[in-house]
Amino acid sequence: MLVEKKTLILPQPFVTEGGATLKKPQVAYEEYGNPDGPVIVIGHGGVGSNHAAGKYAETDATPGWWDGVIGPGKPFDTDRFRILAMNALGGMFGTCSPKSIDPDTGCRYGPNFPEITLRDQVRFIAATLDAMEIERLYCFAGPSMGAMHALMFAALFPHRVDRVVAASGGGRMTASGMAVHHFMMNALRADPCFHGGWYDPKTPLAASKMIVQMYKLYYVSDKLHKKLNADSVPHARHGAQALRSAKANAFLTASLDTACAFHDANCFITTLSAINTHDLGEGFDTYEEGVLRIQCPVLLISVDTDHEFPPFYAEELADILNAVRPGQATTRVVESLWGHFGCIYQRDQIEQFVGEWLPTTV
Amino acid sequence: MLVEKKTLILPQPFVTEGGATLKKPQVAYEEYGNPDGPVIVIGHGGVGSNHAAGKYAETDATPGWWDGVIGPGKPFDTDRFRILAMNALGGMFGTCSPKSIDPDTGCRYGPNFPEITLRDQVRFIAATLDAMEIERLYCFAGPSMGAMHALMFAALFPHRVDRVVAASGGGRMTASGMAVHHFMMNALRADPCFHGGWYDPKTPLAASKMIVQMYKLYYVSDKLHKKLNADSVPHARHGAQALRSAKANAFLTASLDTACAFHDANCFITTLSAINTHDLGEGFDTYEEGVLRIQCPVLLISVDTDHEFPPFYAEELADILNAVRPGQATTRVVESLWGHFGCIYQRDQIEQFVGEWLPTTV
Repeated sequence: MLVEKKTLILPQPFVTEGGATLKKPQVAYEEYGNPDGPVIVIGHGGVGSNHAAGKYAETDATPGWWDGVIGPGKPFDTDRFRILAMNALGGMFGTCSPKSIDPDTGCRYGPNFPEITLRDQVRFIAATLDAMEIERLYCFAGPSMGAMHALMFAALFPHRVDRVVAASGGGRMTASGMAVHHFMMNALRADPCFHGGWYDPKTPLAASKMIVQMYKLYYVSDKLHKKLNADSVPHARHGAQALRSAKANAFLTASLDTACAFHDANCFITTLSAINTHDLGEGFDTYEEGVLRIQCPVLLISVDTDHEFPPFYAEELADILNAVRPGQATTRVVESLWGHFGCIYQRDQIEQFVGEWLPTTV
Repeated sequence: MLVEKKTLILPQPFVTEGGATLKKPQVAYEEYGNPDGPVIVIGHGGVGSNHAAGKYAETDATPGWWDGVIGPGKPFDTDRFRILAMNALGGMFGTCSPKSIDPDTGCRYGPNFPEITLRDQVRFIAATLDAMEIERLYCFAGPSMGAMHALMFAALFPHRVDRVVAASGGGRMTASGMAVHHFMMNALRADPCFHGGWYDPKTPLAASKMIVQMYKLYYVSDKLHKKLNADSVPHARHGAQALRSAKANAFLTASLDTACAFHDANCFITTLSAINTHDLGEGFDTYEEGVLRIQCPVLLISVDTDHEFPPFYAEELADILNAVRPGQATTRVVESLWGHFGCIYQRDQIEQFVGEWLPTTV
């Protein structure tokens, strides 16, 4: 499936919760499948791209990250559905962000880009759907931040979505996940080349490389390191441990330059800050009350080894929904050594769970 | 108990496994208890100090980190034993390290300090005991790197130690623990102010502050973050999530300047590299063969939430020893939200386990 990068400009300015106005904001998106079918929106992981499926050219080494969950005859069936994958507000892949030009100054926003919340990102998606004249979604689905967007969309706009698939997300950001985000933001801000956000955008910061390495510690499981880097080295008379140590470092630093090439520190900070605001209960007397705005069926997929969103958080959310509307929420657990990344790396299991669940929804 | 910092100079040069010679190396140490009693050596955590017990002055806010395990009438009884706590080779607290003056040049070694192994550190301890004319130890005990030192000492010098207490260590360094060490070393080396190890030693690197924050992610449990920074904030109509996020960051950054004040990047790299070489099986046909050099009774204490050394590693080690000499190894598990740090923060449980076990040893 060949796909292309598209953009549109919102016809109205977008006003954040904090009161900042973004004039003429751009949305970068991809579109897959039947243009006349019911619409599915696919959200993406926090600092990931919105290249969810297909290839830009036949020669691309790999397709988008949920290809196989999305595709002809797949659960998110491109023969049947119109599937939209938008880069989030503040994202690094073409939607309005600190990398964009501020029309008032002609310069990039940089650190002057306004702080945004996860609700802002979701309201921005709704504004994008308005611009596309799409009123109602068949489904909103996504991994990680995309899962938070799906759940928040269903809470803010319950009349606009019929079902939600949330993989490795939850009803509010977890404490250790927040701490890891602060760690990353602190690393960027403390980098001597950060210069208060006015760094040279062509040169990735040293801290950016540390963040990529951090992904491979917190967002995977310790068991993965053991299997790949320790148990794979047979005991030998000399140097087995040195080889294990070298493999551990090679794992951390593999493809570091490639991974950092598109990084923008201000976009990181904007996006991670937004994720940390995620709380379906915000503005309500109880968390439960905020959660119960979600009216539609929900599939909550967790990964057994996920440090950021252990399955506990999906169970907690499902219990709240099912206590009032029995059967509204379904939980499934992916088995993976890949921790949080399991929500994109274990496509077979995601495909199976979504494929089994979708036909059970009304 | 008032204690003082002491030093001695080894009478002989010390030659590393790699063939480098350290002339006139200094050892920083503390000594507690009965000067004529049987000798106990206490090893320290990787980048910790050797201030294991007592206070330097009555006005000190806190005593050494295993005070209560060590003390009058305590398991490591200062009324009975002579207790020595030496700063390890390469350490930041006064023993020969990259911070020391190279007698050949009159300048600090800095990045020219030779690479050392964990076996070098343990052979250095043996050389220190030679200089003190101590042939045999009643016990070698320690947390984290101190546990590795204790086990390696018992493997290299089985005729010199009668029992071992190893808390949150193991027979070889774990894969994810190695990776975290590489992460820290990579952060230091990539810091634009590192200057190939010739940084200004009076100014802690930005990367040093990231390492302290990393301690509070990998070496504690996610449950701790949940309890301290999420569950402690009651749901409120406004701002609960922002407060949780702020608490997560406050937890990470508390006392950062104090914690970094004594840090030395070259010492970090020297020490973390040494720990990564830890493998009791090095030089043997099988790991088991290397482990079985340990002849004495061993108490292996793990922490239930430790990411670096989950209890599995102590069980594995105990099984090897007990298969040949039933009852040689005893395992105990500390309950703690503090992860790897539980081996020093849960002194009550450590005290109990050591206090129960010591009388059972011959």
